[in-house]
Amino acid sequence: MTYSVAVSGASGYAGGELLRLLAAHPDVEIRTVTAHSNAGQPLVAHQPHLRSLEHLTLQDTTPETLSGHDIVFLALPHGQSGQYTDALEDVSLVIDCGADHRLTGQDDWDAFYGGAFNEPWAYGVPELPVGAVGGGTPTGKQRDRLVGATRIAAPGCNASTVSLSLAPGVAAGVIDAGDMVSVLAVGPSGAGKSLKTHLLGSEILGSANPYAVGGSHRHIPEIRQALREAGATGDIRLSFTPVIVPMARGILATSTARIAPGVTDAQIREAWEAAYGDETFVQLLPEGSMPRTADVLGANTALIGLAVDRAADRVVVVTAVDNLTKGTAGAAIQSMNIALGLPEGRALSVNGVAP
Amino acid sequence: MTYSVAVSGASGYAGGELLRLLAAHPDVEIRTVTAHSNAGQPLVAHQPHLRSLEHLTLQDTTPETLSGHDIVFLALPHGQSGQYTDALEDVSLVIDCGADHRLTGQDDWDAFYGGAFNEPWAYGVPELPVGAVGGGTPTGKQRDRLVGATRIAAPGCNASTVSLSLAPGVAAGVIDAGDMVSVLAVGPSGAGKSLKTHLLGSEILGSANPYAVGGSHRHIPEIRQALREAGATGDIRLSFTPVIVPMARGILATSTARIAPGVTDAQIREAWEAAYGDETFVQLLPEGSMPRTADVLGANTALIGLAVDRAADRVVVVTAVDNLTKGTAGAAIQSMNIALGLPEGRALSVNGVAP
Amino acid sequence: MTYSVAVSGASGYAGGELLRLLAAHPDVEIRTVTAHSNAGQPLVAHQPHLRSLEHLTLQDTTPETLSGHDIVFLALPHGQSGQYTDALEDVSLVIDCGADHRLTGQDDWDAFYGGAFNEPWAYGVPELPVGAVGGGTPTGKQRDRLVGATRIAAPGCNASTVSLSLAPGVAAGVIDAGDMVSVLAVGPSGAGKSLKTHLLGSEILGSANPYAVGGSHRHIPEIRQALREAGATGDIRLSFTPVIVPMARGILATSTARIAPGVTDAQIREAWEAAYGDETFVQLLPEGSMPRTADVLGANTALIGLAVDRAADRVVVVTAVDNLTKGTAGAAIQSMNIALGLPEGRALSVNGVAP
Amino acid sequence: MTYSVAVSGASGYAGGELLRLLAAHPDVEIRTVTAHSNAGQPLVAHQPHLRSLEHLTLQDTTPETLSGHDIVFLALPHGQSGQYTDALEDVSLVIDCGADHRLTGQDDWDAFYGGAFNEPWAYGVPELPVGAVGGGTPTGKQRDRLVGATRIAAPGCNASTVSLSLAPGVAAGVIDAGDMVSVLAVGPSGAGKSLKTHLLGSEILGSANPYAVGGSHRHIPEIRQALREAGATGDIRLSFTPVIVPMARGILATSTARIAPGVTDAQIREAWEAAYGDETFVQLLPEGSMPRTADVLGANTALIGLAVDRAADRVVVVTAVDNLTKGTAGAAIQSMNIALGLPEGRALSVNGVAP
Repeated sequence: MTYSVAVSGASGYAGGELLRLLAAHPDVEIRTVTAHSNAGQPLVAHQPHLRSLEHLTLQDTTPETLSGHDIVFLALPHGQSGQYTDALEDVSLVIDCGADHRLTGQDDWDAFYGGAFNEPWAYGVPELPVGAVGGGTPTGKQRDRLVGATRIAAPGCNASTVSLSLAPGVAAGVIDAGDMVSVLAVGPSGAGKSLKTHLLGSEILGSANPYAVGGSHRHIPEIRQALREAGATGDIRLSFTPVIVPMARGILATSTARIAPGVTDAQIREAWEAAYGDETFVQLLPEGSMPRTADVLGANTALIGLAVDRAADRVVVVTAVDNLTKGTAGAAIQSMNIALGLPEGRALSVNGVAP
Repeated sequence: MTYSVAVSGASGYAGGELLRLLAAHPDVEIRTVTAHSNAGQPLVAHQPHLRSLEHLTLQDTTPETLSGHDIVFLALPHGQSGQYTDALEDVSLVIDCGADHRLTGQDDWDAFYGGAFNEPWAYGVPELPVGAVGGGTPTGKQRDRLVGATRIAAPGCNASTVSLSLAPGVAAGVIDAGDMVSVLAVGPSGAGKSLKTHLLGSEILGSANPYAVGGSHRHIPEIRQALREAGATGDIRLSFTPVIVPMARGILATSTARIAPGVTDAQIREAWEAAYGDETFVQLLPEGSMPRTADVLGANTALIGLAVDRAADRVVVVTAVDNLTKGTAGAAIQSMNIALGLPEGRALSVNGVAP
Repeated sequence: MTYSVAVSGASGYAGGELLRLLAAHPDVEIRTVTAHSNAGQPLVAHQPHLRSLEHLTLQDTTPETLSGHDIVFLALPHGQSGQYTDALEDVSLVIDCGADHRLTGQDDWDAFYGGAFNEPWAYGVPELPVGAVGGGTPTGKQRDRLVGATRIAAPGCNASTVSLSLAPGVAAGVIDAGDMVSVLAVGPSGAGKSLKTHLLGSEILGSANPYAVGGSHRHIPEIRQALREAGATGDIRLSFTPVIVPMARGILATSTARIAPGVTDAQIREAWEAAYGDETFVQLLPEGSMPRTADVLGANTALIGLAVDRAADRVVVVTAVDNLTKGTAGAAIQSMNIALGLPEGRALSVNGVAP
Repeated sequence: MTYSVAVSGASGYAGGELLRLLAAHPDVEIRTVTAHSNAGQPLVAHQPHLRSLEHLTLQDTTPETLSGHDIVFLALPHGQSGQYTDALEDVSLVIDCGADHRLTGQDDWDAFYGGAFNEPWAYGVPELPVGAVGGGTPTGKQRDRLVGATRIAAPGCNASTVSLSLAPGVAAGVIDAGDMVSVLAVGPSGAGKSLKTHLLGSEILGSANPYAVGGSHRHIPEIRQALREAGATGDIRLSFTPVIVPMARGILATSTARIAPGVTDAQIREAWEAAYGDETFVQLLPEGSMPRTADVLGANTALIGLAVDRAADRVVVVTAVDNLTKGTAGAAIQSMNIALGLPEGRALSVNGVAP
């Protein structure tokens, strides 16, 4: 069977990556691509790297253009998904790459986003452990909720990266969820194709620029939620700072957390091994190895390096992902594959494009 | 009076930056430039940006070539400074840009470097507060020890950046020195002109690469020492992770520490304001502003942004420096100016070259 | 049928890209990977992005390790291919990514390379027109010589880019092969993983660096040969200057040539349309469109933009390729597919990874 | 005497560089900074690297705010200079960094810009030879016209780079001005702080992007004019292609021209030596040396490498400048120094900031 697909926000970065991956997917046909301001123009005018989709023309993003497909991807600014709910009722699978259906708590939504609250959908980070209340051996994975799902929320790129980094330790109780710090080196494509001065090439080149410092980044509640679901107990306290660095794509998240009392180095490493030992797209590197973002460029892979620093009393987890692939579009396609019962890795590469 | 100067390691990055600054200094004459393997070649063959020094030829680094100057800068690999001690006895001012004379504790030296231990020299970060034992209002600055000094140890670039970030909070007792985390985005020039695969342009471009993860970086004891001198009490625990990002120069250090109990936001900000309010080259940005490395390129300036994250219970300090200028050569020249009684900022720019 | 494959030079950039593409090729099994100095180490220690090949260990490059496969890729420094000739006699298909078998003229070899001259092999740029002596409608393509070939010389990346740019105009006689100029913006990966100071990240970042200026680059005779085969008449004069710019991969070649007398704009455009109208991997962009290297990252695609500048009396051809994919490894795989009678585009992407 | 200065366009890149240089100039006082849309905001909100100018507030750009200074710098979009003519009548020295007063021929203005034509001012590239009609030994320099000038047009950055590259050869008659090709690797800051999609960091990083291909770039008539003034005879034909590459600043111009009949290599080199042998800020590198843009970062220096390619029958001239310094603001300050009778190099560095 071939599934018909519509992609909204097709002129943006997330939309472009969805299309790059879907163009190589044998089970789908890209029938409709939409974008508000650029409707009527050829797709390749905005995505000149998608040579195989030269025949597609951008349509306006409306309920009418999106309805009637088997699968619809929404890559819209937050708060806009709700207006398509009715029109997409008959669509078998809707995957939202925006934030509208990620958060389970309205308090978090009100505090970090605002506007109408939408019901939470299955969370598109299959490898994330889902834990027992109070920690201990995880009882499952987010993947379980994606099987047969009809509505999926793709993750925030920074959120999934940090959640994957810390969840195994939180789930196993080897780190203290009340004392965690993440600092991320991120490429500007995570901020989208927005015309803002601080995203100009002249500002980005040769510079490292922090933003949303001090606890205001919208991915923070999403991470806390994922860690809570992984079994975190007590307060979850995360200091989170993203720094834009001069690479188009990529996230390198350095996350540290206080070591739980009485835990051995072997127990720490075992927590991550247990969580990801059977995974294809989330890989724990051997002791002494650390990941680089170049190694996951264009790949659906999260590479994790782990170190225990006894002098600082902290575990250090360094995780590399491609924000557009594993961070967004790859996660969406992987979740789609799971939902539809296709091989989970179809049309997704575990190998990066380097150097 | 014009001081005669010799610079060793003149073909490297630190040596090149020393020469760039010295070439514009009205009180010095660059008489001798030395380098081991490239002796006999014109300086501009290795530093083609130093057009005004086209007349200089690299000599071998020997006691003979270095002696007989008023001022000697050593920019040599660690462990090599000792062999020049006797020859430089008559030199009025020796400034070592290497690590040999930075650490006061032999234990730290043995653990992180090894080889013969050298006596500590005055530490070339003038703005660092020197505190009372047990914290409280700092009693002075490292500057005080540099006045009239004849032997100076220029700092490690990462070390001075992190020390400047955290010392005011430690000195004032508003942060917990037992729970600190620093993650640094750094340019590859900090690693010198070494021919190593991971420093190749093809490896650096488009990638973020962590190194020395887990507590092994040699600048850690130097930071602990600076914070101890600033008045830190109890254990000092610092998780420290540098990440090489694709910019030739620059350090953006994101440092966070647990807030001390009962401290107000105003008290926190006041600590940094008190420490740096009168400084030219270390500037606390207004609330809500964060620094970028581009803004300090080629400048002797450290720009500091400060945020208080109550949800995470942490202070976040983001500091931008140019690793070669304020991080190394600028600090050396500034220290030289202080030692000689010249205006402290002579030949140093507070403005960066941006974009 | 599954072909067994050996790749030499597997720890380098060309070798890495061959393996990335071969890993996704359904008709081959990567059995052996070799490298001289790194023999005995895991492949992923040198190619950490090739996660699916974690099981492979580098062996020494010897006649014994390479023989006994169906297909052998040589990615060795020039002059080294000859020593494997005897050992590879029974190998069905040998593809040399080095220069040893590219040139048909020993004079060119002696002038630009030196050492023993090797016989020329089929040239791995399938889309290049092969012309009649004296120009006019091309009579075929290099592809014709690759069908069923057992020995193939993959092209030089700069050479194939410039040859593809200019050959249609030369073949059709609309430009003057005696007055051509090419200037290339190239990424440093084209220079390989060599430990040279000018290839360090600190030297490459923020800078544009020309090399081999004035006619000494080794790809010049290769281009002249390709244009001669495309039907160039009279003297072929090409000024060729590569400039290393701060992107890991990519070539953007700006080639200009004097317009032949009496030729119309339409005739000029028609020459390129006729040459590439039916090609998948070499695409002429619509009038007014120009290519960017980002659009072909990781793709086997050459994108060509064409403009006619009557005031300067020159045609301008701007071509973007990924030096490691279409420029080297992709061309090799495409040639392999042709030689073996497989679909020409198998395991090759026409879409790039952007942004 | 201290000159009072006003800088319009102070929130842009050219304005920022003017201010960086003026801030270090001992003979001027920056009294007024203006910008249209950002009036009322602190300068450092838009130029955070200019720490020494923290006290300045942007005012609206009006005749009133600009009048009453000794010196006024206009850094405005083309076509806007005229409205300030009356208001600036009493200003001793006006330097326009825009295009309005560069071209002497109205035909060129109409063809490449359009709108009201303004009278040409003294051209701010002091080192450019001014030749006899018909070529031969240059009779002077543009510098001569700048002495005592009251109205100066700073050059286009690409234009001055290419003009400096080719003028000596044209003036001496050793190259054919009817057959010239320039391809430039340029940083995006040359395009200003414009919010355009193709200037976003995500688009610029990892990519080389040509623009204005085929003879439409506005700097072409400016170059032709400079070469005509240098003594070019007959038709001047220049193929000119700029390529944006991922470095914030810098121009590396590769210019080639057909060798005039009967000219020796020595005569060719002599032409450039004669033109620039006595210059501080335009330097011909020794035979075999080629410049890099990093070596002139922040410097007022143009570095020129020269090669003769007899096989291609062309001279190749590679020139590196910083587009914001020597290309724009440095040239403006240098011209100001000349006009005012100050030392020509005051507040300008011949050394770059590298790596």
